[in-house]
Amino acid sequence: MSTTTLEGFQVLDEKSLREYLKKTPSLSSKLGNDDDLDNLMIKEVGDGNLNFVYIIISPSAGSIVVKQAIPYVRCIGESWPMTKERSYFEATALKRQHGLSPKHVPEVYHFDRAMSVIGMRYIEPPHIILRKGLIAGVEYPLLAEHMAEFMANTLFYTSLLYLTTTEHKSAVAEFCANVEMCRLTEQVVFSDPYKISEFNHWTTPYLDTDAEAVRNDKILKLEVAELKSKFCEKAQALIHGDLHTGSVMVTRESTQVIDPEFAFYGPMGFDVGAFIGNLFLAYFSQDGHADHGNDRKTYKAWIVDTIVDTWNLFHKKFTNLWDIHKEGPGEAYLHEIYNDVELRELVKQKYMSDLFHDSLGFAAAKMIRRIVGVAHVEDLESITDLGKRADCERRALDFAKMLMKKRRTFNNITDVISAAQ
Amino acid sequence: MSTTTLEGFQVLDEKSLREYLKKTPSLSSKLGNDDDLDNLMIKEVGDGNLNFVYIIISPSAGSIVVKQAIPYVRCIGESWPMTKERSYFEATALKRQHGLSPKHVPEVYHFDRAMSVIGMRYIEPPHIILRKGLIAGVEYPLLAEHMAEFMANTLFYTSLLYLTTTEHKSAVAEFCANVEMCRLTEQVVFSDPYKISEFNHWTTPYLDTDAEAVRNDKILKLEVAELKSKFCEKAQALIHGDLHTGSVMVTRESTQVIDPEFAFYGPMGFDVGAFIGNLFLAYFSQDGHADHGNDRKTYKAWIVDTIVDTWNLFHKKFTNLWDIHKEGPGEAYLHEIYNDVELRELVKQKYMSDLFHDSLGFAAAKMIRRIVGVAHVEDLESITDLGKRADCERRALDFAKMLMKKRRTFNNITDVISAAQ
Repeated sequence: MSTTTLEGFQVLDEKSLREYLKKTPSLSSKLGNDDDLDNLMIKEVGDGNLNFVYIIISPSAGSIVVKQAIPYVRCIGESWPMTKERSYFEATALKRQHGLSPKHVPEVYHFDRAMSVIGMRYIEPPHIILRKGLIAGVEYPLLAEHMAEFMANTLFYTSLLYLTTTEHKSAVAEFCANVEMCRLTEQVVFSDPYKISEFNHWTTPYLDTDAEAVRNDKILKLEVAELKSKFCEKAQALIHGDLHTGSVMVTRESTQVIDPEFAFYGPMGFDVGAFIGNLFLAYFSQDGHADHGNDRKTYKAWIVDTIVDTWNLFHKKFTNLWDIHKEGPGEAYLHEIYNDVELRELVKQKYMSDLFHDSLGFAAAKMIRRIVGVAHVEDLESITDLGKRADCERRALDFAKMLMKKRRTFNNITDVISAAQ
Repeated sequence: MSTTTLEGFQVLDEKSLREYLKKTPSLSSKLGNDDDLDNLMIKEVGDGNLNFVYIIISPSAGSIVVKQAIPYVRCIGESWPMTKERSYFEATALKRQHGLSPKHVPEVYHFDRAMSVIGMRYIEPPHIILRKGLIAGVEYPLLAEHMAEFMANTLFYTSLLYLTTTEHKSAVAEFCANVEMCRLTEQVVFSDPYKISEFNHWTTPYLDTDAEAVRNDKILKLEVAELKSKFCEKAQALIHGDLHTGSVMVTRESTQVIDPEFAFYGPMGFDVGAFIGNLFLAYFSQDGHADHGNDRKTYKAWIVDTIVDTWNLFHKKFTNLWDIHKEGPGEAYLHEIYNDVELRELVKQKYMSDLFHDSLGFAAAKMIRRIVGVAHVEDLESITDLGKRADCERRALDFAKMLMKKRRTFNNITDVISAAQ
């Protein structure tokens, strides 16, 4: 059976998309009158490997984005199947996260489970993917503040610091079904980089011995096993699951988090670590982008400040939410038990310290996999001088290996920065 | 609406049970011919607070037990509702555990979800509840071996050491629905003992200051919060969830684990700790049962040996299963990554060390709650001299508090025993 007709599913093209929009009031109502609907400007912009993404602009009124998941990896074809049900979890997570952090998550207008179609706000220019801004050397003065707010809100409110056990277990169960996406992460983040895999690649021959050293590093493999167990077993909060700098769109004033198709109940540190780890990748790539006109030193300092601010503001906002809701419904720390000021400080310190160490561990895992695993990052890949790129990658890799092994010895983010410098 | 007619549910009495058996082939087939079915000996023996339990013996052929959960707490009445769906999770867990440890879990013959009825093997005399044997001072030479086998098999084979992520997440999701039982545990084990609660009681006035000290012990409350988080968030394996010495039936030759109605995907250490913690409660209660004829010193030595053997044999059997299945489907430690002998030893040491510390922490939590929480144990309650009982309880409580706080400093079970002595 062709996957394109499975259970009412059909891969949209521009023509069928136009028909789809006309018969879908929740979308057509955003796009003006019948005349507008006959003259929509439609552009396919899916630059990822998985989905189709259409920008739809009305001649006189409004715009939307339509994203369709297809049941295989787009850039490979039907030979690499991947559940289109990821679209359901993406839509569910987007709605939940928009509710919790409305300024930093686009609104969903429409979801069609059979068609795996999400209709949502078009994040208009001059928004660009953060990773591209980081490569271009653009500073985003509000990025740390915004990302801290997104992470604090989405993680706190979906955890047992706020939810009852009944709410939490029900949500955990629902997102257990996003298992195919979890399996993909387990493979590409926690497994493939540590073994011979046909999917792995690296800047060869420069990093051949570095990649081999990763595969033979017993302590590193001991540590990554612990992180993998946390990823698989610790249902702490609804995490985005893929919070790298390619899942964030920015202007100087605005920050929008997109693409939570890997969302599930996992360890909070996986989100915080993904973002910080990718900022570190941007940091280590800067020397490869330096030229006579711009040595990127100022920009490296800005990235460093952004990493520091991201953690510190996240810490502040997260514990602030905890304080606000200390007498709330959350099951984890009942107010009748944790009602003493000194005890509450102790408890918060311990919780945030554990979360910090988790975040550093996951940050390291995300960095390593981007250098010796299957999917690399444009920050480094766009350095055309391979020797120069390999130097950047080796520094990033050595830092990440140290970070994974020594993460529990760091008490604050500035010490981590010092180690990176 | 009366709960007794809800959705085809009806509380059985002896008369309706006889009718039920006749029309249920999977049960009647165990009980002989029509003449036998007309002359069954039926005895209600539910000594717990929750369920009805009937022993049914045929005049000439066979016997069974029928257990019915009712939608409220039996000893209180309909004013304290409790989901009868626990019966579904009990039956599901019994079947899974029987499959994994057939010698130590009774076979389920029949399950009726609407009626919350489980028909299962009658665990015949001279089997008695282990707790009663421990109070009577009876030695069970195979107990440690059998419990180690039950725990190793049921925990290993339901964890990511053996299961794929797909199997694991599917099972986690299913048991998330046993949330009411999880909530009950969270309340009575991890919350009530650490705050003022109408349900708490203790041997008053002797332990009044001890109970108050528990409520005011900041470090203890910090530690119990971590244990509670693990209980709520760490979906490590299908745990029994209530593995105290009242959930085990024994003879000198046989050990049968029953009543897994609290089963869900949680931390393995909760089961190991429940069993060990309850053996420690039996140990500390012995001085209260000593008399001129029997100072119980020999018996205390046997309990101590049983605790040591339980952990050490569990460790041996569990890691042995891991070795056997090291190239199996388990997602946690893929053989291609953990293929080095030295690395495999490192990984096992770390895993078992973490599990040991979890087990000690949960053992301590289970001891504390039985002394200052709502539900006490007969080991201590049966000591009629209140002063003597309070002495035993205080020693157990002090040991448990120390154990919870210092659990990470213990490297082996014999050091824990030394601390108890």
